[in-house]
Amino acid sequence: MNPLPTTEKNARLLKLQQVLITMQAEACLITSSVNQYWLTGFIFDGYILVYAAGDPLLFVRRPVGLSGENIIAIRKPEQIPGLLREAGLQVPKQVLLESDTITLSAALRLQAALEMPEVGNISSAIRIIRSVKSAYELNQIRESAAIHAKVYELIPSLYRKGMTDLALQIEIERQMRLHGSVGIFHSFGENMDIFMGSMLAGDNAQAASPYDYALGGGGITPLLPLGANGTPLTPGTTLMVDMAGNYRPNMDDMTRTFVIEHAPDIAYKAHQVSLNIVHTIEASTKAGVPCAELWHQAEKIVKEHKLEAYFMGTAQQAKFVGHGVGLEINEPPVLTPRSKEVLEPGMAIALEPKFVLPGIGAVGIENTYIVHSDRLEKVTLYEEALGVLK
Amino acid sequence: MNPLPTTEKNARLLKLQQVLITMQAEACLITSSVNQYWLTGFIFDGYILVYAAGDPLLFVRRPVGLSGENIIAIRKPEQIPGLLREAGLQVPKQVLLESDTITLSAALRLQAALEMPEVGNISSAIRIIRSVKSAYELNQIRESAAIHAKVYELIPSLYRKGMTDLALQIEIERQMRLHGSVGIFHSFGENMDIFMGSMLAGDNAQAASPYDYALGGGGITPLLPLGANGTPLTPGTTLMVDMAGNYRPNMDDMTRTFVIEHAPDIAYKAHQVSLNIVHTIEASTKAGVPCAELWHQAEKIVKEHKLEAYFMGTAQQAKFVGHGVGLEINEPPVLTPRSKEVLEPGMAIALEPKFVLPGIGAVGIENTYIVHSDRLEKVTLYEEALGVLK
Repeated sequence: MNPLPTTEKNARLLKLQQVLITMQAEACLITSSVNQYWLTGFIFDGYILVYAAGDPLLFVRRPVGLSGENIIAIRKPEQIPGLLREAGLQVPKQVLLESDTITLSAALRLQAALEMPEVGNISSAIRIIRSVKSAYELNQIRESAAIHAKVYELIPSLYRKGMTDLALQIEIERQMRLHGSVGIFHSFGENMDIFMGSMLAGDNAQAASPYDYALGGGGITPLLPLGANGTPLTPGTTLMVDMAGNYRPNMDDMTRTFVIEHAPDIAYKAHQVSLNIVHTIEASTKAGVPCAELWHQAEKIVKEHKLEAYFMGTAQQAKFVGHGVGLEINEPPVLTPRSKEVLEPGMAIALEPKFVLPGIGAVGIENTYIVHSDRLEKVTLYEEALGVLK
Repeated sequence: MNPLPTTEKNARLLKLQQVLITMQAEACLITSSVNQYWLTGFIFDGYILVYAAGDPLLFVRRPVGLSGENIIAIRKPEQIPGLLREAGLQVPKQVLLESDTITLSAALRLQAALEMPEVGNISSAIRIIRSVKSAYELNQIRESAAIHAKVYELIPSLYRKGMTDLALQIEIERQMRLHGSVGIFHSFGENMDIFMGSMLAGDNAQAASPYDYALGGGGITPLLPLGANGTPLTPGTTLMVDMAGNYRPNMDDMTRTFVIEHAPDIAYKAHQVSLNIVHTIEASTKAGVPCAELWHQAEKIVKEHKLEAYFMGTAQQAKFVGHGVGLEINEPPVLTPRSKEVLEPGMAIALEPKFVLPGIGAVGIENTYIVHSDRLEKVTLYEEALGVLK
């Protein structure tokens, strides 16, 4: 894996420092893995102190022996003020933390260690700047999507009659790993556990889950109530495959649906409505379009076909039709009816209009798109029609 | 998966309420998945409010439609005070939160929603009560270990000459899933990412990682610098397999080491020292023994064999020889030189004296034990000698 190019690092730092200036903040302290990687290209146990100008300082507890410019070994955060003074730097009186990810205990300890600065929250601001990707990042998403498509191509050959959703998922997971998936991926928010993605067969697609993903599923353990639950893949039902596209640090997101041998007409019809939605949005969307507009376009088509009761679930229905993707699988913008966000060039969004049909299963697709000034670029290039497993 | 027995639930609630009484706290609010499951047997998006006496109240945002005794549907935490008053209950003026896992943003929002109670931290106290397991929980650990051993038995048959550590790991992951592993498992602490366990081949065992696991490894991406890194399995080197034992909600932990065809004498010698350490500790340990004593016993044997430079790593050495296991893979007690903890009946501990030999790889084992009043019970019953892959 290549290190993060210096031009990328510098550009990211500059964006972050512009946020500090806009927020009139002296400094921020970065603690989450995702943002450590975003700023430096690697992950460590410690803190990145970023002032509104100048080089960031990396206070590193582990790995021991890590050296480099602006890397300072520490054992505990209480050493930071002394080290700053030794270096002739101010101990900031005002610090922004990643309040949406740092724990209360860690935040209180840091605040005390830094001699009780005023604390603010930089989480949302970083998520917003990360939502507009560089050419380097967008290329990672294209590369990830290309590998993602190769893995999905194998699905019909992995299927055996009589399999359960879980048995097939295990073979897909193996192919994902053989194709370079690192296994875990990051989601933003608490209680957003997931393992390598989600597969929903038959009526398991109706099972409501506690997580804020598009659909649910019962899972195989009360510790992870999501996705495949051991449902046999039965002729006449559908299987929705929404496994992760984590083949690069910046990810794509792609869902495809298969029928088991055959399915009732309504499955083909509703699937076609999902395709109509993404194709309508593809044709009408570019930078400058409000995100809420994408939801409204989807909703209009859903209502024309009187499929509201099945859109994005049945008993529990998700109120979004898509979301940004990047280092986390759920980045801004969110495509909801009340979104105030507007699409910008360089954003990467997943569109996932899905239907859950009682007695049959979920149908629909999810594609990832890059937003350009004049169009959407589809990166998940894989057959969109219902596939057949037989 | 069977639901949590009522007797278990009641016993756990009682222990938690005794903690509240001891800490002179009015109530606590449980938000983490692990402790939600521990208290109720399921996971949801919401809050469990536990008073020092009486039934807990479950405020549930998702899944929608969840019903049952003491389950109250909410959209947002700001509704809680009104709902409590309607039910004739006090809005607590003092609330303990899981400060070690709840985010700063979530904590501040909850505190405001609850009309600014005084906030304390219940995380450690729950970890301590969870460290002493019930018969039901201990049985899960035994069951998990039995399946874990079955998967490890397959390793020689999964090996092919010329494989990398990662290629073999992928085949082991598949077998884990086929044997019921749910994939993800919980670790306590920030920046403790891991994917299904760790395999270390040759000198990759020396790579220092940012995480607080016993050993490191470079991994295959800067987003997860841990474990297998694509090292070819070369004759004359070793492969340490420390894959997860997550076949039940309460887990076991087990490491075994294999030589690739053969290895230098020092590998056999150091491995035997690891066995001596666990067997010495097994013979001398029971409830009442201080945890630090286990570290000191290990250290004494390591020094007798002059293997200090290789114990628990080389450049970066872990300062513990074991840890508790349960719903999380790193529970109390921790077996460190400065531990103040004392072993109690019902604790489950993993002992993992490991050596990293430059030019060869890691050797040693890890077993999980249940602490009884008169002995340790070993639950990871799988051949301890160096295995051979050929």
